[in-house]
Formats: sequence, structure tokens, C-alpha cells
Amino acid sequence: MVRYIGTAEMAALVGREGPEAFLIRLAGYLRADFRRWTAFDRAPRLATLSPLGVIELMPVSDAGTYAFKFVNGHPGNPRTGRLTVAAFGVLADVATGYPLLVSEMTLLTALRTAATSALAASALARPGSRTLALIGTGAQAEFQALAFKAVNGIEAVRLFDVDAGAMAKARANLEGRGLSVTCAKSVADAVRGADIVTTATADKARAKILTPDLIEPGQHLNAIGGDCPGKTELHVDILRSAAVFVEYEPQTRIEGEIQQMPADFPVTELWRVIAGETPGRTGPDQVTVFDSVGFALEDFSALRCVRDLAGPGPELDLVPDLDDPKDLFGAMLGRGRALDRAA
Amino acid sequence: MVRYIGTAEMAALVGREGPEAFLIRLAGYLRADFRRWTAFDRAPRLATLSPLGVIELMPVSDAGTYAFKFVNGHPGNPRTGRLTVAAFGVLADVATGYPLLVSEMTLLTALRTAATSALAASALARPGSRTLALIGTGAQAEFQALAFKAVNGIEAVRLFDVDAGAMAKARANLEGRGLSVTCAKSVADAVRGADIVTTATADKARAKILTPDLIEPGQHLNAIGGDCPGKTELHVDILRSAAVFVEYEPQTRIEGEIQQMPADFPVTELWRVIAGETPGRTGPDQVTVFDSVGFALEDFSALRCVRDLAGPGPELDLVPDLDDPKDLFGAMLGRGRALDRAA
Repeated sequence: MVRYIGTAEMAALVGREGPEAFLIRLAGYLRADFRRWTAFDRAPRLATLSPLGVIELMPVSDAGTYAFKFVNGHPGNPRTGRLTVAAFGVLADVATGYPLLVSEMTLLTALRTAATSALAASALARPGSRTLALIGTGAQAEFQALAFKAVNGIEAVRLFDVDAGAMAKARANLEGRGLSVTCAKSVADAVRGADIVTTATADKARAKILTPDLIEPGQHLNAIGGDCPGKTELHVDILRSAAVFVEYEPQTRIEGEIQQMPADFPVTELWRVIAGETPGRTGPDQVTVFDSVGFALEDFSALRCVRDLAGPGPELDLVPDLDDPKDLFGAMLGRGRALDRAA
Repeated sequence: MVRYIGTAEMAALVGREGPEAFLIRLAGYLRADFRRWTAFDRAPRLATLSPLGVIELMPVSDAGTYAFKFVNGHPGNPRTGRLTVAAFGVLADVATGYPLLVSEMTLLTALRTAATSALAASALARPGSRTLALIGTGAQAEFQALAFKAVNGIEAVRLFDVDAGAMAKARANLEGRGLSVTCAKSVADAVRGADIVTTATADKARAKILTPDLIEPGQHLNAIGGDCPGKTELHVDILRSAAVFVEYEPQTRIEGEIQQMPADFPVTELWRVIAGETPGRTGPDQVTVFDSVGFALEDFSALRCVRDLAGPGPELDLVPDLDDPKDLFGAMLGRGRALDRAA
């Protein structure tokens, strides 16, 4: 039998643990897996494009466990009340090839994106960072705020969005969670004096949400909204004068902010910092950028984390359990068997 | 919600319809999809190899529907009571990227393989074929026998396997199903006078299950056991003097019997015959070979068929249903929501 975790169980799991405790736990799994980066088989994602969007399969495995995520990207979905990005994932046993877990990953992806942002900031932001500017208050916003609070000690969050309703939504959701939350009047108003700036906007085109005049020495920029070819958030001059960190360089060169830069623009893969191979931030005035596009390894960590936390529960009969592997027909369709089951 | 079909429901569905009626229905779906072959986006399969086996993701889509199959291949699995090959599949809506169906595909793959064999034989075997030789009586055997009976009018089946127990198993499973079933003493004994010969052996190495001296003019050879690099069943001289048909030429050149032949060895893709673009068998004495390795389009057809047949039933909450797509946090983890669900 294959363990199944649907959206209701995932929400209950995270709610019971508490979002912040879950994000801290998940950041620990991410840290452990980033540290053993070279133990993973990183296959390219397999994308099927259509005029309305993309469906992707993202596999990754180590010697013992295989994972993949099914994820779509359909910018027009909100017009019909659907999510732009929905996802589910599977863990399987490398030794037998049998699936072990099928899990919702829409909520889990939001959590792992935020936990990855916080993990990166713990290596790249100034020690003692307390203020977060959150530009773009869509589906990812509250997860970012709580991850930075739980993992990095952020105390104050300044929200900004061109959609006042979305900003009010994020503020209401964050109320009573131990954060000082304010709505800023502009991007500049939000960014001024912030220790960490997250950009999580959904602009399809090449945007310049942040320009060099807004950036202060020592800020850490967590750029997560630019995540596909043609979609960026930062002005190139910010990248030129910052230390830029990425998840998986070949993928980020295509999908990240650095798609705007020459192919030899220097970047550092985050795992090298987490593993202690190379320094992260090198001084209090350095501007650091985490150019994050999401990576299959993060889904692997998230699925491992939720499987361990969930324990036993609902199961799916996705693979037949046979006495004799050569007798598939007899076990499934043999006399009496099928009728027994239909009855 | 996403429709779910597990092994028990699949067995009940096929049992209720009857295996032969199901195979006829499935052959109809396969025929319809092979006819519109060029409407499909055929991505390569994505294989993750380990010392013990392989895990593959096989996607395919047309303008409206996307499908993928998760399938493993672990030759050592039977030693621990597991299947060498187990599979499940997913249908999704191209317009929204949302999953529509999650289904077991171990039984369904056995059925679609047999239905594809029968569909090919209906275009390639001599009209009036009545006798099938079935070399290799593992998990696929009974499905082959019933598909050829239902779709092609086969009346007599001669079994042969080096494993007498597996041969007895197939014979017992086929008893009382309207076929004359005999166990042959050798491959030659089984093949002599047969109209159609299926080879479904599991030999890992380059085998020569069939040699030219055994083959009679006009026979149709359905070679389904050789399906990966290094694994073949037919002597090259059989291929040299036969008309060879394949599913998808680039894949079969690597995985099929024709991996033994030069890259310019002539083959015909089956869909061209099904679509009426090119003739199949051109005379009563011609030896025809269907060099079948399995193709993602067949899984697409099988998932469509079973979805249509199954109708409403069990569902999975694999994707959240939100009032406001920007308010993932509030809907899943907002005050009261998570606790409500956990209670």
C-alpha cells in the first residue's frame, strides 16, 4: 500500500504542528539535503508546453529514495478560480521501484519555498536581521513572513502590493502571529531600512521591481518571483554589484534573474555555503542576492519531512500485492476474484 | 477532486465488463489514437537508473489531455515477492494543468500491451488466423491469449515455457474461457503450424527464442519480450527476411529486436498501417514481425478508456479548492481552518 496525504491532511498536519514549527523542521531537512548535494541524481525537468501553460515532471533521487513532483504553471487559471500553480508529489523506493507516498504539494511547495528562502537567509543575511520587506503579497507572502520569523528572528514585516486587497489579505492572515505588520505606500517605503527584501511578484514580463537607488548596503535580497524565461524582478545593476547565490546554476541561468546577465556572470551555488565549502556573506555592507527559482531537491526534502511527520494514515492500493508475481491475471481476474471485489 | 482508481476497482471494472469485452473496447481506443498519431506531443521517457533497476516517467499529450505513467523495472523484485514491473498513471487537463485521474496501471499495462498486440495482428496477421503459439507464460500470457481470441478470432493456444509451473498456471487461468489450450513440449512444437507467435520471455541477455528454421511462411511474429537495450528474442536472420513493424521508430531502434540491425534497416511504424497510409501484410506467405516495446501513447489510450468506463467513484483531494487563489494560507492554515480539519 502507498501512503496518501491529501490537502485536508496536509493542512491538519501543518496546523497541528503549527506553521512556524513546521517551517523550522522543514528548514532542517533542507539543510541536511543541501549538505549532501553531490549524493543526488539531478535529472532535468521534463516540460510539456501548451498555449495556456506548462506541465512539468521534476524527478530527483539519491541512492535510497526517488522523488518526483508534478507541477503546472497556468497564468490564466485564477480567472476560473483555479491556482496558477498546483502540484503533487511521489516518493518511491529506489531498491524496488515501488511508490511509497503520494502527497499533495500545493501547500507543501509554498512551505518549502519559504523554508528555502529562510535557510538561504540564515547563511546570507546580516546576523541580527529583524525587518523584512515583502514585495508582492500573493499566495506565497504569509509563508515567507512566518519562515523568516521562525528561522531568522524577523520581528517586523512591511508589505507592499499593487493590489490593495491582496495586501489586506496578507495583513489579516498575519495578525496575532507575533509579527509587527505594516502596509507600505510604495516599494521604496517598504524597502527603506529593511534587512531582508523578498520579491514575490507574478509579473510575466521583464519587470524591475527593485532598482539600484532603492537598495541599501548590507541588505539581503530574496528574489523568488522571477522563475522562468522572460520573467525577472531585479534591475541588472543590482546583480552587477551584489554577491549572487543560486540553487542549481544550469537551471537558474535559464530561469532566474541571471538570465539577464552574461553566461560567465559569477554566481555561487547555495549548497556550497550550507556545506561550509565556501563563505556566504563576507561583510556587513555587502548586498547579497538569493536568485531562487525552486529546485527538485527541495521537493525531495519536503516529501521526506512530511512523510516522517505524518506517520501511518490513509493508504492507496496503487500497486497489486501478489502471492506469485507471474500470476497477475489469476490474482486480479481469476475466477471468483473479480466478482468478489465487485460485490 | 481527482478521480482515483486503485487495483481493487480496476480488477472489479475489468471483471464486471469481462476481460475480453474490456480488451475489445481498449483496442478500439488504441486504434482511434494510433490513427491520429501526429496529433500527439511525444516527449522522450525520463529514466532514473540505479544498480537494481530503473524508474521511468513517460509523458504524452494531445491538445486537450496530458498523461504520464510512472513505471519501474526491477528484475530482482520477484525474489522478494514483488513485481518486476509495477506502474501507475495520471491524466491531466492541458488547459488548466490540473490532474483529473490517478490510476493503478500494473493490470492496465498488461491489458494495453495485449490489446496493442491484437490491434497490430489485426493489420499484420493472415486473415482467418486461428492458432496462437505463446512462448513465455509469465504475467502477460493470459492477457495475450484473451486479446487474440477477442480481437482476432484465435481459437487454439499452444503454450511453452521453460518453467513448467508457469505453464500450468497459464493453462489453469485460461481453462473454461472458450479456448483450446495445450502445453507444448518445445518452442518448435508450439510454433509448428501456428498462425501467430507471441514471444513474451523475460531473458535479460540476447536470446534467440526463435530461429529461422522454426518459422513458416505467412506467420505473424509478435515479439514483446525484448524491450530494453541488451534484451532480444529473435535471431537476426528472421528480421532480415521479414516485414518489420514498430511503434515509435527512434525508441525501438534502441530497445527493440531491431537493436541488432543496422540503423538503416527498414521498418514501418504501425500507426501508418492503422491509419491506412501504408499497407501492412502484402501477401499470404510474407512473415510479419511486430517488434513491440510499449509506447506512452498506449498508456494514454488505456487511461482514457478506463476513465470513460469507470464513471464517477472514489476521489482524492490532491489539489486545493480555493475561493481566492491568492489566499492559499488563509484557506489552508487560517485561524480555525486547520484546527477544524484536525478535529
